[in-house]
Amino acid sequence: MLGLGSEAAAKIVADLETSMARSKHPIPVGISNRHFHITEEHWRILFGEKGPTEYRRILQPGFWAANETVDVEGPKGRIKRIRLVAPFRKKTQIEISRTDAAVLGIKPPVRGSGKLEGAAPLRIHGPKGHIDVEDAAIIAQRHVHFNPADAQKFGIQGGEMLRVRAGIGGPREMVFEQCLARVSDQFALEFHVDLDESNAAWLKNGDFVHIV
Amino acid sequence: MLGLGSEAAAKIVADLETSMARSKHPIPVGISNRHFHITEEHWRILFGEKGPTEYRRILQPGFWAANETVDVEGPKGRIKRIRLVAPFRKKTQIEISRTDAAVLGIKPPVRGSGKLEGAAPLRIHGPKGHIDVEDAAIIAQRHVHFNPADAQKFGIQGGEMLRVRAGIGGPREMVFEQCLARVSDQFALEFHVDLDESNAAWLKNGDFVHIV
Repeated sequence: MLGLGSEAAAKIVADLETSMARSKHPIPVGISNRHFHITEEHWRILFGEKGPTEYRRILQPGFWAANETVDVEGPKGRIKRIRLVAPFRKKTQIEISRTDAAVLGIKPPVRGSGKLEGAAPLRIHGPKGHIDVEDAAIIAQRHVHFNPADAQKFGIQGGEMLRVRAGIGGPREMVFEQCLARVSDQFALEFHVDLDESNAAWLKNGDFVHIV
Repeated sequence: MLGLGSEAAAKIVADLETSMARSKHPIPVGISNRHFHITEEHWRILFGEKGPTEYRRILQPGFWAANETVDVEGPKGRIKRIRLVAPFRKKTQIEISRTDAAVLGIKPPVRGSGKLEGAAPLRIHGPKGHIDVEDAAIIAQRHVHFNPADAQKFGIQGGEMLRVRAGIGGPREMVFEQCLARVSDQFALEFHVDLDESNAAWLKNGDFVHIV
């Protein structure tokens, strides 16, 4: 016996009850393949005057995948046809997996979208030219999008770190620690992971996960 | 309150104490990149009469990585230079990640090594010829190798399913469920995962994980 006191036991039970309450609501999975966001200025260098064209809407309101793609080049290799997610942003940003990073020969940090300090440099090739971007590549930090009504239902604050159980009933069930809660009225409820994470947990788009 | 009784609370505490005791001992991580095992008969078709040559020893006693590689071909694509792990086996077996499976266009099951019923078909190309193997490709089930002394120290039985916490202090900590305990006097203590899993948890070879 390790001599856990009744106070510690009570805290364990209380935490368990909170997580049981939250875990009642399933959250759909959205798997992010490698993609990029771009500034209008960089777009003009890579693609010229004509703007991006819509390939398909994505679940998050206001965002859409474009027909246009770039190739990116690192010290060790190149990855072709990385798709643009529009609209334009204030900073150009390449979101790749750690598997992709090994192909390119770069070591990007794990970051929330838009947090580009210390991001890895890459050369980006478009049909009209290329650019070298110093703080370009990140590996996206897994996160859950909530709109304010969802956040209230789950009892979640924006910025909170969540634990998410994934792949229940599959061959690779796991618990993801440190899943960032992001709350905005621009968001639809969704758990975002990259391909390394979805493959490791045996997830596909539209599967459900649970906060624990 | 969900009305958890004192019996349920006692069980939670007891389980926690068992896991705290086991979690004291760190287990080194071994990341398996894609590789294959081969029968002597298949070897002769692909490589001819001369046997495989050693590239380097691996941690598990009696196994070694060979200099020789094959290319494999699925309905959607091809992967080059998959390395042989010797010695010869009774069945030819290709161990790939789910990321690799998507490139090849096949859907292999998650399996323990040697369990090839329902494995995915692949064409295997060697320097002297090629073979089509019906039950060839699996995605390795993550597992922990114990020698009998380690197993006793951890209080583990072979075949038990373990929970393993990985990536503590890193940006992608997680808990892997359903990690198969394998016990043999041929084994060195090691937690085996594939590249999807190590990338998802931000692990590198020689990092340590803990049973929880």
